Amino acid sequence: MSGGGEFDFIRERLRPLTRGDVAALDLSDDAAILPPRPGHSLVLASDMLIENVHFLSTDTPEVMASRAFGANLSDLAAMGAEPTGYLLSVSWPQSWSSAQRDAFIAGLSAAAGEIPLIGGDTTSADMPLSLSITMLGFVPVGSALTRAGARPGDDVWVSGTIGDAGLGLDIARGKLDPQTHLLSRYQSPQARIGLGLALRGVASACIDVSDGLVADAGHIAQAGGIAIELEAAMMPLSTPALHWLENEGDAGLKHLMTCGDDYELLFTAPHDRARDVLALSGQHGCEISWIGRVGEGEGVSVIAAEGDAMSFQSGGFTHF
Amino acid sequence: MSGGGEFDFIRERLRPLTRGDVAALDLSDDAAILPPRPGHSLVLASDMLIENVHFLSTDTPEVMASRAFGANLSDLAAMGAEPTGYLLSVSWPQSWSSAQRDAFIAGLSAAAGEIPLIGGDTTSADMPLSLSITMLGFVPVGSALTRAGARPGDDVWVSGTIGDAGLGLDIARGKLDPQTHLLSRYQSPQARIGLGLALRGVASACIDVSDGLVADAGHIAQAGGIAIELEAAMMPLSTPALHWLENEGDAGLKHLMTCGDDYELLFTAPHDRARDVLALSGQHGCEISWIGRVGEGEGVSVIAAEGDAMSFQSGGFTHF
Repeated sequence: MSGGGEFDFIRERLRPLTRGDVAALDLSDDAAILPPRPGHSLVLASDMLIENVHFLSTDTPEVMASRAFGANLSDLAAMGAEPTGYLLSVSWPQSWSSAQRDAFIAGLSAAAGEIPLIGGDTTSADMPLSLSITMLGFVPVGSALTRAGARPGDDVWVSGTIGDAGLGLDIARGKLDPQTHLLSRYQSPQARIGLGLALRGVASACIDVSDGLVADAGHIAQAGGIAIELEAAMMPLSTPALHWLENEGDAGLKHLMTCGDDYELLFTAPHDRARDVLALSGQHGCEISWIGRVGEGEGVSVIAAEGDAMSFQSGGFTHF
Repeated sequence: MSGGGEFDFIRERLRPLTRGDVAALDLSDDAAILPPRPGHSLVLASDMLIENVHFLSTDTPEVMASRAFGANLSDLAAMGAEPTGYLLSVSWPQSWSSAQRDAFIAGLSAAAGEIPLIGGDTTSADMPLSLSITMLGFVPVGSALTRAGARPGDDVWVSGTIGDAGLGLDIARGKLDPQTHLLSRYQSPQARIGLGLALRGVASACIDVSDGLVADAGHIAQAGGIAIELEAAMMPLSTPALHWLENEGDAGLKHLMTCGDDYELLFTAPHDRARDVLALSGQHGCEISWIGRVGEGEGVSVIAAEGDAMSFQSGGFTHF
């Protein structure tokens, strides 16, 4: 008796994303029911993503889905949690064709892999795409990584390379010549789930680099009540980013350290765990680089190669 | 170093909504960490709500918050779950003043009572209000109510009165003269949490009336692979709704049975539990009324007072 496109869409397009997971109840009920995992807490990370704010309107639906999922999954990586499912709440633009919706679903399916969709909500409105993904993961009670916990004397580390996604965004905006690696870092962020799991019991604090390296270091500093000193010369940069930087000088380096969307893990660890951290380098699809140290005080300072402090107007992206 | 209005807003306006709950981590991290409750599954219900679609643009921010929260909490009631917290992901219209945002927060705080905000995300965009609430609740493993489970011979019951919120919406749209009770049913839905808990082990299937009574009965019929026959004469109506109905006839009754937003519990129970159901009537702030029966077959039929089948073009609200 009831019916219409909404229910058909859920059954035909969204239900396959559940991968048959029992928590989803086939998406046929008002809610998901997640069975307990004894001895584990549930980590819940939500991102709200809006076309023209977090996506370019020129991004394809696949890219929007891939970026939304990767950004959200990265929050779980930063907590050292093992993904168990996600909720998708989405308001489709009424201007989107069913082919565009299908392309979004295809991008989501590819980004999610075996992680099941277990619930959410879907509607449509005469406005840009608006969506919220809530990523769910389990972590043994008491062993989640958080932003708080860095102590003076700790080292500061970061995975992978910094600034690629920001340059990829510049490419997507038509401000830079196309370059495959950089564009892919913007379009298809790869959350460091494996590394996050390996950092349990090793890292003293952890965050994913989304707002920008300097801003995110600031979050760790604030949460821990400590100061962070970063060495600009130690920033890990990809070959295409180094190539771009040749003509840019200090302003370019600042751009790479603040542009965000890297979805690398920025973490601190006691100095006597440095060997353990280095042992992880190269093991999870990325190198791990020492980039600074934790001290007494507050805030983030960045030391240039010549030894002077670099000044930053803003550490990165904020939403207001 | 980082900063700006977003972080201030989270600290000053959103953090009080956590009620100090440990899962929220003071909203200072990338995610919430919900400790396990042994022997309990977690129920997760998400609603995506958009200004001009789910809210009138003339609704006050308090009303939007109250409606969003009540609708979402009602999904938990329908599963028989005990609320433990919620996530709020919101995109504020850039046209909103900080007073409007504060009014929304005040409405949310009033609607939530002691239920803590434990996470989410906040951003702003040049478009209407868009928000997703994910309500979280615990239920003993295996005892959640779902839409599936109704069996031929079961009775069909509904809590409270039907159609008030739909008339309240007509009032809010200026199509009907103001009437306090009806308007309040639209503006401040009250989820039947206590009743939902009491229905564990009693109801065979349960749903909250959001799309419309007939459509939601259709969801139970479809999920259970059974037919539902409703008796129009047995519909519980409030005094103001009865008064309105006097001049409306069958079309008016159909309106009340399809307009939705009631957030009452519609459920089935074996006939030999009828006495248990009736014992709950009046105990949770509402009466419980017998309105029909479950049979073999499929779909929903509605029998008019004269004994004829009433026909419905559509059972209620869909989003496409």
